[in-house]
Amino acid sequence: MIVPKIVFIVFDGLGDRPIKELNNLTPLEAAIKPNLDAFSKMGINGLLHTVKRGIRPGSDTAHLSILGADPEVYYRGRGPFEAAGVGIDLELGDVALRGNVATLDKNGLITDRRAGRIADASEFAKLIDGLTIEGVKIIARAGVGHRMAIVLRGVNLSDEVTDADPHMTNEKILLSKPKNDSAEAKLTASIINIISQKAQELFPTLGNPSANCLLLRGAGKLTEFPNFEKTYGLASCCIAGGALYKGIAKILGFTILNVEGATGKGDTNIDNKIKAVTENLDKYDFFFVHLKGTDSFSEDGKPLLKKEYIERADKAFSPLLPLLKEGRIIISVTGDHTTSSELMAHTTDEVPLLVAGPGVRVDKVETFGERPAQSGGLGHMEGRHLIKYLVDLLGKSPLYGN
Amino acid sequence: MIVPKIVFIVFDGLGDRPIKELNNLTPLEAAIKPNLDAFSKMGINGLLHTVKRGIRPGSDTAHLSILGADPEVYYRGRGPFEAAGVGIDLELGDVALRGNVATLDKNGLITDRRAGRIADASEFAKLIDGLTIEGVKIIARAGVGHRMAIVLRGVNLSDEVTDADPHMTNEKILLSKPKNDSAEAKLTASIINIISQKAQELFPTLGNPSANCLLLRGAGKLTEFPNFEKTYGLASCCIAGGALYKGIAKILGFTILNVEGATGKGDTNIDNKIKAVTENLDKYDFFFVHLKGTDSFSEDGKPLLKKEYIERADKAFSPLLPLLKEGRIIISVTGDHTTSSELMAHTTDEVPLLVAGPGVRVDKVETFGERPAQSGGLGHMEGRHLIKYLVDLLGKSPLYGN
Repeated sequence: MIVPKIVFIVFDGLGDRPIKELNNLTPLEAAIKPNLDAFSKMGINGLLHTVKRGIRPGSDTAHLSILGADPEVYYRGRGPFEAAGVGIDLELGDVALRGNVATLDKNGLITDRRAGRIADASEFAKLIDGLTIEGVKIIARAGVGHRMAIVLRGVNLSDEVTDADPHMTNEKILLSKPKNDSAEAKLTASIINIISQKAQELFPTLGNPSANCLLLRGAGKLTEFPNFEKTYGLASCCIAGGALYKGIAKILGFTILNVEGATGKGDTNIDNKIKAVTENLDKYDFFFVHLKGTDSFSEDGKPLLKKEYIERADKAFSPLLPLLKEGRIIISVTGDHTTSSELMAHTTDEVPLLVAGPGVRVDKVETFGERPAQSGGLGHMEGRHLIKYLVDLLGKSPLYGN
Repeated sequence: MIVPKIVFIVFDGLGDRPIKELNNLTPLEAAIKPNLDAFSKMGINGLLHTVKRGIRPGSDTAHLSILGADPEVYYRGRGPFEAAGVGIDLELGDVALRGNVATLDKNGLITDRRAGRIADASEFAKLIDGLTIEGVKIIARAGVGHRMAIVLRGVNLSDEVTDADPHMTNEKILLSKPKNDSAEAKLTASIINIISQKAQELFPTLGNPSANCLLLRGAGKLTEFPNFEKTYGLASCCIAGGALYKGIAKILGFTILNVEGATGKGDTNIDNKIKAVTENLDKYDFFFVHLKGTDSFSEDGKPLLKKEYIERADKAFSPLLPLLKEGRIIISVTGDHTTSSELMAHTTDEVPLLVAGPGVRVDKVETFGERPAQSGGLGHMEGRHLIKYLVDLLGKSPLYGN
């Protein structure tokens, strides 16, 4: 008997609300997507509340949840995932933050939170990287565009500190403050404030007047996470562009497969991502494939581009259909949350889910979409149950009782 | 962009079971209700477990739940809601009870729990109001008909006491007993028993021999409740007749709109209630409209009158349909529980739910009812999730994670 491999495809922000220009269909419903529809028809469908019903999830908490690591237990801020995602080898106890290279005007007000969308923050990261502040080592590494990750490595650090980033333009950079009275939180906040200040002194030396400060946010301390491979006994890999997703996967113990052209944006090379699945099919048991474009286009209020991105992805999925038909893979497609293209924000609405492959109780749903999934056989499911269901299809879930 | 207002209509005891005389339809299913059916068709539908699956809710716990205040956390007895509903300004620490003016025979047995349904208990309440017993101030105010609310105001009071009302005829009035050994519970029970006794001494002086005692029940201490307006950032009002519903809304921080002809009974003026919505549409963001008749008729075993009440309400809803079509309101209609007209009692059966308006993923359900809702896109939902969903349609729910 062939033991099928699990291909778990997550479209970021896949779900949407009815869109007038799409005849009151969602971008997914309106998309021409013969492969996704075939998966849906060959499978069982449902609606996923990725964290819990009524919770509006961030991408970080949602991914933890659908990858089986309960965010209420493990989530301590986004920083560590971003840092791991840009290639920093984190150690337990590290406090990690996200940073934007940004623009301050003469009055100390932020005028652009992305420094004119600079292409690469590597030179800026180098100015911070390697500093030692109050005995704490600072590690900085550039992410995509204007982004970087900063890690504080030392003893007695805390993530109970507020952001220095005000998250808005026309505001001053804030002083990070301890959220409690501990010496650890006070020390950490003071280090963050010193980094803020150093960046304002050092960044202008690079000669770009609109890249003159650093906005620090999302402090999180790295604590112990469950290891995905060990928990489920599955050799697991992650195929993603965005640092956050690679970081989450890395921290959960996935092998990161780096793919040419995986940008973590709408222009990512989806064909190469799927090729990374098919070419490594013998090497891994579980493939977590992340596609960011759907979220990016909804955050920009572009439902038609979201629809086209889904259509492009669908074409790229063609090599998966014969594998599914041959029983060599179990395929599951879903999103991490709904992003309303109208509100340009995450919402609590469920995301559609399909699971196809050997062992699945195929239902009557014929196409993949928010509304078709309403009558799916899986009903309404919480994110934390999904991995358990997928693993159980392989007969690998633990027995409760006897 | 218009920001729609939320109109949340709760029919008390809306759900029912199949009724033989109605061709095995429920009163709601059998009703001719073009407006409700239009809302249903334009919206998404589902089944609501107002507290939790398997829980048979009282009207008080169910309303707390669907208005977002978890009864397991906040519910301490019905008394405070009734007291707030008849206009007593409660203070934290007050213990409130409900009371019926009733009839005792010569042997001290209760022969009528409603004193021949007297029209007004105001004169009776005045006999109790203003007493001071063991240093505790007594406040009494009449409700509808034979009902009144009694508040004990002082330090060291407890709601851990049993009812003096035996809840049945042909029984004697009980002695309220402390449920634990605390001095507070003992004091409170003793005050309740003194009030019982005073009522038997004083009520006969009013000259109605069949209104000669007071049945006290539902002791509850007022604790801190979440403020609905502040939690969701919505200016909120309540349009209801019954004291309980006004009281719950008042304690949760709603503005109470008093409407002419809102009796809290089957003869209430529903047109005036809807007029209070349409005339105040610019003033509030959230309208909680309560209709009691459905419950009253089921409690009396009158499913046909329940059906007719729904039809009458449906006619009154006509002004809402154009507002819905214009995208000016989000409308949600549901019940607080099922009341079986055959059992003449609340049951655990789900209540149908519809939500229509901008942003809703319209499903295929075409009429409003218990059975049609079984295939609705919302599936089975718990009451506590409903407000979160409604608020999220406006993009107002908090983000968990990043």
